[in-house]
Amino acid sequence: MALLVVGSMAFDSVRTPYGEAREVLGGSAVYCAVAASYFTPVRMVGVVGQDFGEEPMALLRDRRIDVSGVEVRKGRTFRWSGVYSEDLNDRTTLSTELNVFESFRPKIRREDAGAAHLFLGNIDPDLQRRVLDEVKPGFVACDTMNFWIEGKNDSLKRLLANVDGLVINDAEARLLAGELNTVAAARRLMALGLRFLVVKRGEYGAALFSGGHYFAVPAYPVERPVDPTGAGDSFAGGFMGHLSRRGENGGRVLREAMIYGSVLASFCVEDFSLRRLGSLTPQAIDDRFMELREFLSLDEPAHPGKPSGPSRPR
Amino acid sequence: MALLVVGSMAFDSVRTPYGEAREVLGGSAVYCAVAASYFTPVRMVGVVGQDFGEEPMALLRDRRIDVSGVEVRKGRTFRWSGVYSEDLNDRTTLSTELNVFESFRPKIRREDAGAAHLFLGNIDPDLQRRVLDEVKPGFVACDTMNFWIEGKNDSLKRLLANVDGLVINDAEARLLAGELNTVAAARRLMALGLRFLVVKRGEYGAALFSGGHYFAVPAYPVERPVDPTGAGDSFAGGFMGHLSRRGENGGRVLREAMIYGSVLASFCVEDFSLRRLGSLTPQAIDDRFMELREFLSLDEPAHPGKPSGPSRPR
Repeated sequence: MALLVVGSMAFDSVRTPYGEAREVLGGSAVYCAVAASYFTPVRMVGVVGQDFGEEPMALLRDRRIDVSGVEVRKGRTFRWSGVYSEDLNDRTTLSTELNVFESFRPKIRREDAGAAHLFLGNIDPDLQRRVLDEVKPGFVACDTMNFWIEGKNDSLKRLLANVDGLVINDAEARLLAGELNTVAAARRLMALGLRFLVVKRGEYGAALFSGGHYFAVPAYPVERPVDPTGAGDSFAGGFMGHLSRRGENGGRVLREAMIYGSVLASFCVEDFSLRRLGSLTPQAIDDRFMELREFLSLDEPAHPGKPSGPSRPR
Repeated sequence: MALLVVGSMAFDSVRTPYGEAREVLGGSAVYCAVAASYFTPVRMVGVVGQDFGEEPMALLRDRRIDVSGVEVRKGRTFRWSGVYSEDLNDRTTLSTELNVFESFRPKIRREDAGAAHLFLGNIDPDLQRRVLDEVKPGFVACDTMNFWIEGKNDSLKRLLANVDGLVINDAEARLLAGELNTVAAARRLMALGLRFLVVKRGEYGAALFSGGHYFAVPAYPVERPVDPTGAGDSFAGGFMGHLSRRGENGGRVLREAMIYGSVLASFCVEDFSLRRLGSLTPQAIDDRFMELREFLSLDEPAHPGKPSGPSRPR
């Protein structure tokens, strides 16, 4: 089955204690689509400016992502720049230039309607709802952020009543629910009509609330994270990618998807932009999936030849 | 086997968004000993003032804790007061009166020497080392804090070369290791000679590093945490209590101990002081242990009659 991803495409300029990258490919739809591309056929809907160029597009095509739904418009591509704190847990936005993204109106083509799986990246909830109406997917999850929680709360809540799941940062989950505690927030958000809620917790991993059930996956312990930009979107991509590949979304498959989300996020943070995320092998993904499963297991693995501890820095 | 716990005994005054408690029983040794008392016989070594009174001592005795090693000295008991932020993640100390604790010199009696299991709560590492020399336990873990990391770093590192494990907060683990990343910090701390390291992460649970292995346990999702004071010490108590009960400390037992640590910490935060932690049943502990195991499992539990989601507030 195919996954349709709608969201931002950007050039990011990022400074972290481990280095700097200027005008590199980023955006929520890009990270999500690339992460998902290891699992399932992916189609992207987004907008870029005439300055986007062939190289980033080729990078996406190399991942066998269908970019025919990406609109190239007159003007410049969305740009974001930011700097991270020493421990990578805080970031300060230095500049945001929306450019062509400001007037983004996702165009759903006939071949995108009826997509089996849809991920609605963090855009205006009015647009998310319109895409949802036009696609009528079999399964849909979305993300959002402070800006929409504060500015378009009603629209967002109407959206949430019509999606299967929400994949969101913990601080935003609390803000959206108006609760100081994540567990209380989860209960309130589920009551809006969600079938599942994924709360992303950065270096601490992520938690899944579904029906009366709870599941927690740790972050894969990365010793030298370089840049956390896109980690949450990569999580969403690994998560949605596995669900799309399996074509089901029952308890065990959802939990496996959480682990794959954590795996893809961990690769993302190992380098800037798509330098690591864009060049994985299925074997590398599966190895890390097995390691994370072992980190959750009461039984220590019995592979004397293969240490299962955190990998050393590359 | 018995567990010997050495550390502070205090009266705490705490304000959180959920209420206030004044001059209630606290201290690292108290929380640790009470949590461990559900698993194994516990003996405490600590000091209190003449104002301590019979009531708190009776509470400890009711938990079948041997308090004959608690010294009652002329003067006032250690007092701490603090206030927590709205989300309970930050706290500000309002006052610290060391009182009789300032000149605490743990007295190890003949019957305490050779204890099978020892937990060295957060006290001066010079004293921790002296206790360790006198007790010569079969198995020992310790805790510490910023104050000693900064003030007695050499002594602390000599201690760490002679214990089995360290149970410590994540920020303190990074400070002690001089690393900004917890995974890198863990590698550096393990190299000091530890057999295992437990990094406590508050509402995110805890991580175990042992040999080349890694294990992560989430916090039990408590919807209405009331007071986090003592949660880390309760974690240590549940952890050490289970190891002492089992009389072994191999891979699986260590991982089970992590889950019991998380269970006891979760009960601790549900009310002030020992109001909840001090009145548990073995059944309540085992139920929550099973729930946490399910939260780690890829297979959703199949108990239609018993929801395994987070408990509702009491």
